[in-house]
Amino acid sequence: MGKIEEEREGGVEAAAEEEQVVNPWQVAAKDGGKIDYQKLIDKFGCKRLDESLVQRVERLTSRPAHVFLRRGVFFAHRDFNDILDLCEKGEKFYLYTGRGPSSEALHLGHLVPFMFTKYLQDAFKVPLVIQLTDDEKFLWKSLTIEDSKRLARENAKDIIACGFDISKTFIFSDFNHVGGAFYENMVKVSKCVTLNQVIAIFGFTGEDHIGKVSFPPVQAVPSFPSSFPHLFSGRKNLRCLIPCAIDQDPYFRMTRDVAPRIGEHKPALIESTFFPALQGEMGKMSASDPNSAIYVTDSAKDIKNKINRHAFSGGQDSIEKHRQLGANLEVDIPVKYLSFFLEDDDELEHIKKEYGAGRMLTGEVKQRLTQVLTELVERHRRARAAVTEEMVDAFMAVRPLPHMFD
Amino acid sequence: MGKIEEEREGGVEAAAEEEQVVNPWQVAAKDGGKIDYQKLIDKFGCKRLDESLVQRVERLTSRPAHVFLRRGVFFAHRDFNDILDLCEKGEKFYLYTGRGPSSEALHLGHLVPFMFTKYLQDAFKVPLVIQLTDDEKFLWKSLTIEDSKRLARENAKDIIACGFDISKTFIFSDFNHVGGAFYENMVKVSKCVTLNQVIAIFGFTGEDHIGKVSFPPVQAVPSFPSSFPHLFSGRKNLRCLIPCAIDQDPYFRMTRDVAPRIGEHKPALIESTFFPALQGEMGKMSASDPNSAIYVTDSAKDIKNKINRHAFSGGQDSIEKHRQLGANLEVDIPVKYLSFFLEDDDELEHIKKEYGAGRMLTGEVKQRLTQVLTELVERHRRARAAVTEEMVDAFMAVRPLPHMFD
Repeated sequence: MGKIEEEREGGVEAAAEEEQVVNPWQVAAKDGGKIDYQKLIDKFGCKRLDESLVQRVERLTSRPAHVFLRRGVFFAHRDFNDILDLCEKGEKFYLYTGRGPSSEALHLGHLVPFMFTKYLQDAFKVPLVIQLTDDEKFLWKSLTIEDSKRLARENAKDIIACGFDISKTFIFSDFNHVGGAFYENMVKVSKCVTLNQVIAIFGFTGEDHIGKVSFPPVQAVPSFPSSFPHLFSGRKNLRCLIPCAIDQDPYFRMTRDVAPRIGEHKPALIESTFFPALQGEMGKMSASDPNSAIYVTDSAKDIKNKINRHAFSGGQDSIEKHRQLGANLEVDIPVKYLSFFLEDDDELEHIKKEYGAGRMLTGEVKQRLTQVLTELVERHRRARAAVTEEMVDAFMAVRPLPHMFD
Repeated sequence: MGKIEEEREGGVEAAAEEEQVVNPWQVAAKDGGKIDYQKLIDKFGCKRLDESLVQRVERLTSRPAHVFLRRGVFFAHRDFNDILDLCEKGEKFYLYTGRGPSSEALHLGHLVPFMFTKYLQDAFKVPLVIQLTDDEKFLWKSLTIEDSKRLARENAKDIIACGFDISKTFIFSDFNHVGGAFYENMVKVSKCVTLNQVIAIFGFTGEDHIGKVSFPPVQAVPSFPSSFPHLFSGRKNLRCLIPCAIDQDPYFRMTRDVAPRIGEHKPALIESTFFPALQGEMGKMSASDPNSAIYVTDSAKDIKNKINRHAFSGGQDSIEKHRQLGANLEVDIPVKYLSFFLEDDDELEHIKKEYGAGRMLTGEVKQRLTQVLTELVERHRRARAAVTEEMVDAFMAVRPLPHMFD
């Protein structure tokens, strides 16, 4: 026991050999093509989240599975079945997710894990910790500490706007929270991972600063209830489930290896694909290209223009050809986006059928998508405008969560 | 600017080539001989603390220099002259020293920096922060976090027993204190040091755990007043002077390189030789061999026995030969120990002269040393017995030091 190699890994290095790179800082498909998610599952050693698990979730929560679950956005997992076993026995767990606060405004891809986590919190009635890694962003980006902290607080407002239950949710930023039991766990984790191991997992080099080398334990320790004595006092054995995009898997492979060696449970994971850029499914959306993504701050006009001008279409070049051949749904971004955000299964199926057969045109699909996203963004904007500084303070207050399992 | 190499270094690697190893974890002379301190000064790039500086200290403080200063125990420095320039202008500075709490009882070598720091605090009337690196000891030794924290508190009692002024002194342990501005500075420092640099400075390898790699910033940041906003609020430009043994120099070479890049002053240093083992001057005393050191917990009988049985003598094999040739004072441990702890210069000179000429025997010198150390240890034990848990809490309380410059 005790070697990172026990869990199958590969991460940076193995992926690079095959020209598909997925790690917490880079997501790039082979030769500009699509990310091969099955290959990621094989390389990382996680499991496919199959139909039987989705049905089990529906049975246990007595509600339909979230769109992201039944349409395979969250497609992979580690030990999610163990979490469901616990639920079957009437036991509880807690959720942990997070965000690196690198930009003022979130885009739709940033909302995906939070929308899904909100569903999980409601469906399973469990507590949640949300980590804002302002220290990470200071270390990786050209940001001052003050700016990182400010962005963390701004991002917290967007997160709160997703509708989390304040009686069950603790949001914290690393710069405000590292210390005490949390720091003790960071030090414990760091004692269990060698330099060679982080180099293999994360691809660090000798030219990287030691802040990068020191960071993985910071993202690891919210997986352990003992890092939050104020929150989970007396519930040291509480299991943790982490909803995240699959590029975060390297952190938690490391965490899962260390956990039993410091007397903690391995966190379970439920992992998503990446939300594609408007230009196509080569990787994640990029914060540095505003036309690659739709932001929660975009106006209705922005959204319409971005979709019309930049959303990669699988439709044919001419109407005649389109009527004859139909759209290529595999590469069509409007259909892809609708499959994330159009909740009505029947309507989505109808669009796919008509559009794929050439009876519906790209313009019509884009129009429907514009409606859906404008509503989503407007709803988010209204919710965010209602988030006060006092609410942020309340979500971030170090406090017990007395009703966390009600 | 900005490369560690700017300040002359060498540390682990260069010293190893020449078979003398001095770093924070190992002190070993070449071929079992004595540590060559001049070589250390040359390798590390610090300066000899010469007679003119000692006289300047006496002039500025209006009191005789401490025995450790006038007898060359503190023999090297970095920018100590700058600190004295400040004093000349009526400005103040603060002191920073520390200890890795690895053992229950301190030995005489452990007391040296604290006795000297107490003198500096009294002579210059300045505030002092004392770091107990319980996280370091957890990382490097087979200790639980609980034991490291307990040892830190026990060691704090011995430190308080040295007589520090509570109105000017803040003692903290890393496990209790890391967080907030202190953590922010840790992250800032870690962003300025590459993996290659810590490998060159500290000799880490790929097999070392990342806790070791993450630690140097923790020891670095008490050099910056901004790490203690509660203590030094409004005095962001306060200079720092670090009294320590010269094996800690690598940490502060790194710190001094980083300081200007994060808008802080370089800390000044005043560095001591190592207190030799009873068996001779091959290196530092070892906590793992109880007969190599005299502990503050040793009884009068223990002290007498250890000195008589284990203190390496420079006297001759027979009385006749001794009367004829005299003692070799260069290797004689009783004389060396007396030069640390016998305050009367005239008496020390007398002993050296008589013993060196063979008119005094080893037994007599050992007897005098036994007296001196028994008194010292008894005095320390009485002082420590008077240290209450409440006093420890008071020294460790996060608080402003309102009278720190009175």
